[in-house]
Amino acid sequence: MDALQGTTAKAFLAMTSYVPTQATQTFCSIATSVSILNALTMQEVDKRPVTETYAPYPYFTQQDFVNSPCVTNVTSDVDHCGTTLSQLNAILKCIDPSRTISKYHASTASLDEFRRKAVDALSGLGGVAINFDRKSLGQPGGGHWSPLGAYAAASDAFLLLDVAKYKLPYAWVAATDLFAAMNTMDNSANMSRGFIIIA
Amino acid sequence: MDALQGTTAKAFLAMTSYVPTQATQTFCSIATSVSILNALTMQEVDKRPVTETYAPYPYFTQQDFVNSPCVTNVTSDVDHCGTTLSQLNAILKCIDPSRTISKYHASTASLDEFRRKAVDALSGLGGVAINFDRKSLGQPGGGHWSPLGAYAAASDAFLLLDVAKYKLPYAWVAATDLFAAMNTMDNSANMSRGFIIIA
Repeated sequence: MDALQGTTAKAFLAMTSYVPTQATQTFCSIATSVSILNALTMQEVDKRPVTETYAPYPYFTQQDFVNSPCVTNVTSDVDHCGTTLSQLNAILKCIDPSRTISKYHASTASLDEFRRKAVDALSGLGGVAINFDRKSLGQPGGGHWSPLGAYAAASDAFLLLDVAKYKLPYAWVAATDLFAAMNTMDNSANMSRGFIIIA
Repeated sequence: MDALQGTTAKAFLAMTSYVPTQATQTFCSIATSVSILNALTMQEVDKRPVTETYAPYPYFTQQDFVNSPCVTNVTSDVDHCGTTLSQLNAILKCIDPSRTISKYHASTASLDEFRRKAVDALSGLGGVAINFDRKSLGQPGGGHWSPLGAYAAASDAFLLLDVAKYKLPYAWVAATDLFAAMNTMDNSANMSRGFIIIA
């Protein structure tokens, strides 16, 4: 575990520090969002909202997030795990207009582009939210969201910080498999799934 | 991050996979317990309870845990973060009588014993719950519980997986400092704090 003490592990520890179990079976995009927002504000906690539960300590929570006008103005269908790639991108831009937030549909991106942008973000304390099809990975369920936590060059794999912890723990997934799982059709959007980079 | 893919990282990933933010400002021992119980059952999910929230997937949750007779028979004071070392030990033995669960008051243990037992547990997918005084570490707050996640030999430090994530993220703490923070008086027990090993 000594390797975890190096500077390259800082982003990893920031990300893993803040991943909750999604509060309901439909809150995958919400849990993913608050993981990343709490991690990105680790050194700037004054950018977090103060909630009743944890006052006076500021913290992004799933319940407050889902009640935000930034969510309710974009979709009334979160209860079906219903944020598409475009919807979550719009929600995150509304939550924090000061950040650079970019969405990439896998159908118009490439594996190389995904790997490069995700590794860049994870190396610099940025966040990567991925929208993928579980079936494509042989997992139970369908469309899902989770953050990424780390990249291992030797095996070209990303650590998937699954927010549905009652289903699956964190796991290393080959970049090619992850990209294929994102390059699937989201029928509620009529577009492919993909990833969002939050810097 | 390649180092995280080795076999020595398995216990670390199991532990970090399941740490929630404590559901309220008083649920530190509860959040610590469910972290460890979910991690220890990662390969035996049939040993987890099925809860309404995540059915059909079995999972230990903080709310179900706190409502368990194993908790309510031991203390009615959880709302003040009030499980002493002895109380949480009794609760955990009641929750799963099949496990080996041992408590150690820091006042009658030694730093060497703590280090050896904690490293043993973390190396073998066991869990370590520590009860310590935040003030002793220069942190805001008083008595607190959290699980440990890893040990780094080079710096003789443990990774503290703080469940009060709204206060502090995961952090490496020197074994000596951690032991000193456990070797403090818990006035509600009239005994020192300490640690529990769950195997």
